[in-house]
Amino acid sequence: MKPSSPGLPSAAVVTFEPEFVAALKTLFEDLIVFNRTLGLQITEISPGRARAQLAMRPELIGHHGHQRLHGGVVSATLDAMGGLAVTAAIGARHLDEPIATRMARFGKLGTIDLRVDYLRQALGPQFTATAEVIRLGRRVASTRMEFFDAHGRLLSTGAAAYIVS
Amino acid sequence: MKPSSPGLPSAAVVTFEPEFVAALKTLFEDLIVFNRTLGLQITEISPGRARAQLAMRPELIGHHGHQRLHGGVVSATLDAMGGLAVTAAIGARHLDEPIATRMARFGKLGTIDLRVDYLRQALGPQFTATAEVIRLGRRVASTRMEFFDAHGRLLSTGAAAYIVS
Amino acid sequence: MKPSSPGLPSAAVVTFEPEFVAALKTLFEDLIVFNRTLGLQITEISPGRARAQLAMRPELIGHHGHQRLHGGVVSATLDAMGGLAVTAAIGARHLDEPIATRMARFGKLGTIDLRVDYLRQALGPQFTATAEVIRLGRRVASTRMEFFDAHGRLLSTGAAAYIVS
Amino acid sequence: MKPSSPGLPSAAVVTFEPEFVAALKTLFEDLIVFNRTLGLQITEISPGRARAQLAMRPELIGHHGHQRLHGGVVSATLDAMGGLAVTAAIGARHLDEPIATRMARFGKLGTIDLRVDYLRQALGPQFTATAEVIRLGRRVASTRMEFFDAHGRLLSTGAAAYIVS
Repeated sequence: MKPSSPGLPSAAVVTFEPEFVAALKTLFEDLIVFNRTLGLQITEISPGRARAQLAMRPELIGHHGHQRLHGGVVSATLDAMGGLAVTAAIGARHLDEPIATRMARFGKLGTIDLRVDYLRQALGPQFTATAEVIRLGRRVASTRMEFFDAHGRLLSTGAAAYIVS
Repeated sequence: MKPSSPGLPSAAVVTFEPEFVAALKTLFEDLIVFNRTLGLQITEISPGRARAQLAMRPELIGHHGHQRLHGGVVSATLDAMGGLAVTAAIGARHLDEPIATRMARFGKLGTIDLRVDYLRQALGPQFTATAEVIRLGRRVASTRMEFFDAHGRLLSTGAAAYIVS
Repeated sequence: MKPSSPGLPSAAVVTFEPEFVAALKTLFEDLIVFNRTLGLQITEISPGRARAQLAMRPELIGHHGHQRLHGGVVSATLDAMGGLAVTAAIGARHLDEPIATRMARFGKLGTIDLRVDYLRQALGPQFTATAEVIRLGRRVASTRMEFFDAHGRLLSTGAAAYIVS
Repeated sequence: MKPSSPGLPSAAVVTFEPEFVAALKTLFEDLIVFNRTLGLQITEISPGRARAQLAMRPELIGHHGHQRLHGGVVSATLDAMGGLAVTAAIGARHLDEPIATRMARFGKLGTIDLRVDYLRQALGPQFTATAEVIRLGRRVASTRMEFFDAHGRLLSTGAAAYIVS
């Protein structure tokens, strides 16, 4: 099969209004309830890029005897981060729209598929996850994600595709 | 690259002792804390195959406005199910070992990577997930997983590789 | 992220005209030049399902000392098979269109991403590959693929997503 | 599931002997016959990193009407590149061994699984592919790969896991 038709990644020179960032944070951290269960907190957001942190908590542990983060916390976080980065890229493409209209685009986003590579055990008090959009098409967006421990060690990587509209 | 060296899937004629099944259930449903956060309950376990169910709960929702299960709940569940099926396959290969020894093998299991395909939105009060081992080697096991709604509609599929010992 | 919006797989009761099947065979086996390099030959085609075979040839070998099929032959074949199954599913959805119009839809198909799991080494004189569409949406289609040796042993599995129009 | 046990990426300060590089080139470009069918040529090799180029040729085309590289050429190339980078990483870990012994380790390498994301159509006279090892364990290695056109545009990305020994 041929690869899907080309698209342009959004320029990174755009800066978001504080109101748009605040609306994104509320949506991502509170209204997406499972993200709250995970404890995700956005620390950086720009067109096509996102960064968040989460703290180790007992209910996120994979095995009570080892105090490691459950692999499912990692995969759920990376999926959420990819979606956030795509939302930021779409937001930058539609800066002329009112914030509410841009936010509504987030509701139309859907994950097509996700791959996670687990490299090292997730130990420690705090973790950071990043995502970048590597292609933003009119119908599909592709992202790459990374998951780090508190020392900046790369624990997991991911890739995902999303439907956009 | 050539595919990794061949291995034999364990025969499905083995039946587990009730004590082994009970120990697996305790481990999977309670001691793996995040599985309890997800609410996973084993409904069927045989060598190389596993089935579990989970109920929709508010903290598993992806977006407060839509009442859909978060995609991360699906990916976390499919990863957990693949690992459970591998554990059952390994348990069947070492039936001569005491239950405690077999259970200890579970602690050595690690996910190498995971892919999830999201086909349809996850709506409804209850979900079922299944996993089967499609290759059990001495070092690596491969699994396929499926995720269904209460009507038996296929919502997501997955594939994963695990390190075994 | 929520999964992408739902879609209906095409019913399998449709039967294709011989002319459409012949046109598909010519396209797949001859006009897609690299498929000819691989030696792919369609043996079965129905809405959403496809089967093909290929013969071992010296130029497809992974390592001159082992006579195994190169893993890249497997991944290329599975990608091609998924695309063929999607084309057949789309063809069934547009049976009212002239064959040429249906064939033109194939040119708009693009692979979004592909995963291949290598289970066992690919040895022997002949191989078979199958693909089925597990979701056909208006924008994205998802497929599962399998790769077998001459004895029907499962050697590899795959999953892919495609853009459709 | 917990991630697999930790491992150390090999340091990049190692330099290979010209004889080892020459042996790797012969193996990769000639003895792996399908790589020759693809036309892969190593342009750079260091511990855990590899780069190669391939030229567009008629038999690699995906559709005679479009002159695009077949997606299967991309997936086969990325799989081959990941394996090459792992071989280089293993070679650096066993610098004390004779070259023939190090080369024999390549024969034990096997791809566990592969993911390819197709971002843009592969057009033009020449392509470059790179791979890096992001984790080298005693049993499993993980890699990331990229595929570029002659202008350095990123066309595809990949990730793969390999069995090592």
